[in-house]
Amino acid sequence: MATEAGGRLSELGEFAFLERLRALPSADRDVDLGIGDDCAIVRAGGRRWLLTTDALVEGVHFRWRWDDPAGHGRRAFAVNASDIAAMGGRPRFALLSLVAPKRASVADLHALVRGFATAARGAGCALVGGNLSGGPCWTISATLVGEPCGTALRRSGAHPGDLLFVSGRLGAAAYAREILLGRRPGSGSRTAAFRRPIPRLALGCALARARAATAAIDVSDGLLQDLGHLCRASRVGAIVDADRLPFAPALRALSKRARLRLAFAGGEDYELLFTVPASRARRLPRSPGVRLTPIGTIMPGSAIRVREASGEIRVADTRGFDHFRR
Amino acid sequence: MATEAGGRLSELGEFAFLERLRALPSADRDVDLGIGDDCAIVRAGGRRWLLTTDALVEGVHFRWRWDDPAGHGRRAFAVNASDIAAMGGRPRFALLSLVAPKRASVADLHALVRGFATAARGAGCALVGGNLSGGPCWTISATLVGEPCGTALRRSGAHPGDLLFVSGRLGAAAYAREILLGRRPGSGSRTAAFRRPIPRLALGCALARARAATAAIDVSDGLLQDLGHLCRASRVGAIVDADRLPFAPALRALSKRARLRLAFAGGEDYELLFTVPASRARRLPRSPGVRLTPIGTIMPGSAIRVREASGEIRVADTRGFDHFRR
Repeated sequence: MATEAGGRLSELGEFAFLERLRALPSADRDVDLGIGDDCAIVRAGGRRWLLTTDALVEGVHFRWRWDDPAGHGRRAFAVNASDIAAMGGRPRFALLSLVAPKRASVADLHALVRGFATAARGAGCALVGGNLSGGPCWTISATLVGEPCGTALRRSGAHPGDLLFVSGRLGAAAYAREILLGRRPGSGSRTAAFRRPIPRLALGCALARARAATAAIDVSDGLLQDLGHLCRASRVGAIVDADRLPFAPALRALSKRARLRLAFAGGEDYELLFTVPASRARRLPRSPGVRLTPIGTIMPGSAIRVREASGEIRVADTRGFDHFRR
Repeated sequence: MATEAGGRLSELGEFAFLERLRALPSADRDVDLGIGDDCAIVRAGGRRWLLTTDALVEGVHFRWRWDDPAGHGRRAFAVNASDIAAMGGRPRFALLSLVAPKRASVADLHALVRGFATAARGAGCALVGGNLSGGPCWTISATLVGEPCGTALRRSGAHPGDLLFVSGRLGAAAYAREILLGRRPGSGSRTAAFRRPIPRLALGCALARARAATAAIDVSDGLLQDLGHLCRASRVGAIVDADRLPFAPALRALSKRARLRLAFAGGEDYELLFTVPASRARRLPRSPGVRLTPIGTIMPGSAIRVREASGEIRVADTRGFDHFRR
């Protein structure tokens, strides 16, 4: 502890920091769930509301030349909306706090805000507040207010024996990021998986309405790391079957090792990872066009294990994307 | 328009940009008031809520060495809470989106968050969400959810003939900032006016409860500039009596010209500027220890004029603090 308290963020990392934030006292009777999940749950006007905030920093989360300004705005909405999806909610109101370099063009700024507002409106969410500051780089920080569809999903309800599902396909966004970073050949449409994430709002809402999932999280930092968050919150472990992972088609030509790395640790997929009692796994609510794949099982204990196709089982490295570590 | 659309932010400025944002379509029936005031007003669960976001960027709004980390956190809460105060509300929930340099110490980060959370709790507001990213400099972006005490105050209700009031005393924060910037001698307690702004929550709440004010705004960018925002929103002009301004005691030794500059254009005061029908000016609700001073009158038209002690009247320069312009 002493070492950590005197340490640098680059050593401690974001998640350890957020873990500590949870220890802050909060005795507000209108706060159902504070820091530590994808959204907070608060009570207001006799109902429950979801609150979440997330930022995209130029040079850390994205580079300006990776997309047109409207695309950056759309993506900022999507990654925030994904946190609402992970709680089984609908986004209703959005606020956008922008930092822009002095050299930024007004046309770019407007396109970015319009991209954000249009994406929000498409999801039934109104951009109601904005703030703009000068600064050394673009920072697109958004806050969303959502309403749960039924009972909000949390990270903390998984039980041993529950099946672990993931929506969609994994790895394409991380693969696209490697192209954008110039680490792989490719361009154009092959980078769309990173540039155009689709928050799983309909699926999250359906799961919450049907009370089908015991726990949920979105895959933003990497499957194993996000599974780690879910398991820690639920005080359980898990075992993931490597050969059941729904790899994105874009990874087809890669080695198995590269595919697994992208799917397990790549992040940016914004798919939902959720747990379901085995008895309910056949009656899951569906979201049109969204594939659901059972990829493992919740276990007692705290270890996250991966079962290889060979049957070999190893303890997983749950480190994924941490802005301060890489 | 063509020039502006192709222009840079450093030429257009933040406020012109925000004016344009207001033009974005918003047809949500749960949005009572969108972008363009101190807070948005939305309907949720049958009640009205206030939403606001504001950011402090290192090197633009503050320098790290100007205060201890807890002080920066406290101030970030205060400047956001001031927007809630200007709408006559109580802050209830807060989210904090932090960008910190990699070199930042974990102890500093914790102290900052604790400073923010403690200030929030002192105002009846719970910190319920947090986000942390790496980046080139500190950026403390907060979002507050508040509830109006009675009918929310807006910038847009002032009428010709209304009296213009300001709370507290003006200029001390801008004077303190000049000390902090090394442009004036002084130190320690003389910089507290900048480092420890006090959001006028009790006053705002009392004004909203009594329906006493026709319009209100907080003085963050400079008295004349903020008065300009209020007048534009209300489609009125105003005349301010320069010799009625409640100068802060710290300005006593300065020339009259310097005092006026700090009070009119300095900003950072976080006092409330509000308008009151003349018939109600004698029955204003009071907030203990907060002086209220009538400093002028709302006029027809759109010009903001200043009446000097000599009786001379001039049209005011309403440019104050704009992050892109200075």
